[in-house]
Amino acid sequence: MKIEDFLQENAHLVDEYLERYFSPLSVTSSLVSPIIYGVKGGKKIRASLALATGLSYGIEKEHLLPVASAIEMVHAFSLVHDDLPCMDNDDYRRGKPSMHRAFGEAMAVLAGDALLIEGLRLIVGNEQLVEFFGKEKVLDMVNVILKALGIEGMVGGQVLDLEGEGKEVSEEKVWEIYRKKTASFLTASILCGAIAGSATSQEKEVLEKFGMLLGECFQIKDDILDVTQEKEILGKTPGKDEIQDKATLVKIKGVKESEKIMKNKEEEAIHLLLSIPRSFPLLLEIARFVIERKY
Amino acid sequence: MKIEDFLQENAHLVDEYLERYFSPLSVTSSLVSPIIYGVKGGKKIRASLALATGLSYGIEKEHLLPVASAIEMVHAFSLVHDDLPCMDNDDYRRGKPSMHRAFGEAMAVLAGDALLIEGLRLIVGNEQLVEFFGKEKVLDMVNVILKALGIEGMVGGQVLDLEGEGKEVSEEKVWEIYRKKTASFLTASILCGAIAGSATSQEKEVLEKFGMLLGECFQIKDDILDVTQEKEILGKTPGKDEIQDKATLVKIKGVKESEKIMKNKEEEAIHLLLSIPRSFPLLLEIARFVIERKY
Repeated sequence: MKIEDFLQENAHLVDEYLERYFSPLSVTSSLVSPIIYGVKGGKKIRASLALATGLSYGIEKEHLLPVASAIEMVHAFSLVHDDLPCMDNDDYRRGKPSMHRAFGEAMAVLAGDALLIEGLRLIVGNEQLVEFFGKEKVLDMVNVILKALGIEGMVGGQVLDLEGEGKEVSEEKVWEIYRKKTASFLTASILCGAIAGSATSQEKEVLEKFGMLLGECFQIKDDILDVTQEKEILGKTPGKDEIQDKATLVKIKGVKESEKIMKNKEEEAIHLLLSIPRSFPLLLEIARFVIERKY
Repeated sequence: MKIEDFLQENAHLVDEYLERYFSPLSVTSSLVSPIIYGVKGGKKIRASLALATGLSYGIEKEHLLPVASAIEMVHAFSLVHDDLPCMDNDDYRRGKPSMHRAFGEAMAVLAGDALLIEGLRLIVGNEQLVEFFGKEKVLDMVNVILKALGIEGMVGGQVLDLEGEGKEVSEEKVWEIYRKKTASFLTASILCGAIAGSATSQEKEVLEKFGMLLGECFQIKDDILDVTQEKEILGKTPGKDEIQDKATLVKIKGVKESEKIMKNKEEEAIHLLLSIPRSFPLLLEIARFVIERKY
């Protein structure tokens, strides 16, 4: 199976799972439409990272799917809030109007909140899942996700990102932004799969380092695509980093040099993952996809 | 001890606990100031509800404090987002400028997110607490909190609240808004104390009903104060319900009739709580405070 097919199949499974889960609730809340709208589409790399890792431990997709879906809801929360007019002010996302364009600003704030809250509930409130994985693993997963989202992680990174706009920012600061804003939650997705699979602490350590490197690659590639790709293929508005004068590696090093740095990081990541006995073939393929992708 | 002193002492303990916890993190993130700003002040009724309930089961305050503090962070998250210009557009809260007035709109969105995320982490990520209460109780608490926040709870209620603005809304719809927006999370605070204390399922059932009635009383009183109280005493801008033409009981029934309904509900709540063997003296006192308060 080609990695693109694996990704596409997973994205489809997550969309389907969440639609099946939330649709019956639409009679009681008008939040259900924006929730489904916010999570639908996109590459769903984070879901696939959780699935790919868990599959390497022989856990069946069926059991990993609620966790992978929860991760995508939480990711969608961050996109919806990030797109708000007072934040990055993005009108276009995943090939369609962003949440506040489609449902208004107030609903976008609340739908973002709901995506986070209901995403976490998908794990903590899922009796079957708690039964299957046990309370300890469920707590570990939630912990890993929350840590990656909080002030040491994504939200902390968003603040640095906003603070870096229009300023001369050091390369060191750019790496800090990349790690907090992007790499920490990508890593959490991998670690959720590892927790599901009862990974050893050595494996978790390696997977964490791999995840951080992959996350850095992912963000560099994002910033390169922002400069080089077209709106229709990207599914979001390109050229925004320059307009908002964002602190990116591309701004400091240019596209060519950034590409080189990204490829070195990818090699390092792959090398690391091959250093332990257990094999993670799908993760290796996703790493390649991340740096070669066109969208 | 007078109930006002109990409340004030708890509010102080929570403020102190959170300042001690977050201050060391201020070197790594400029989110710490807004987090402390957002949670500081206010009556902290929800923290006291959790503490009062847990104390009735003989759990020491020291062990309940992280949970009570987490609850107040999560509550502050809802206030910060609710005050945003695109939502209720409130410039004044807890006797000081609201978050977006003090730190800007983008920071208010992110600080709200951080209050929710770090609030939950205060419970899930607290090893000592997990050790003391055990994984099952910790999962139960997080579950109860998330359910009360989600589309069936607070966020769902906020949406109904916004949708009800400027419309003829039925009394039934007003009760639904009150229950989801306010009562569900007040109830969750009580239930967290009950979970901490290993309450029986009968006790939990009664405490849940009590919490919902108390929450309804709390919201009616809030709406009455919005009409009758001054800004300086209230700590927030009064008269906003009328300006925004909110769906409130006061709008439908007037102040006098709303007061009567509130008092009946309080009596019902107290009657209910007295119907089980275990006694909850502090909860009874808080119920009285809720309907008699001037702010």
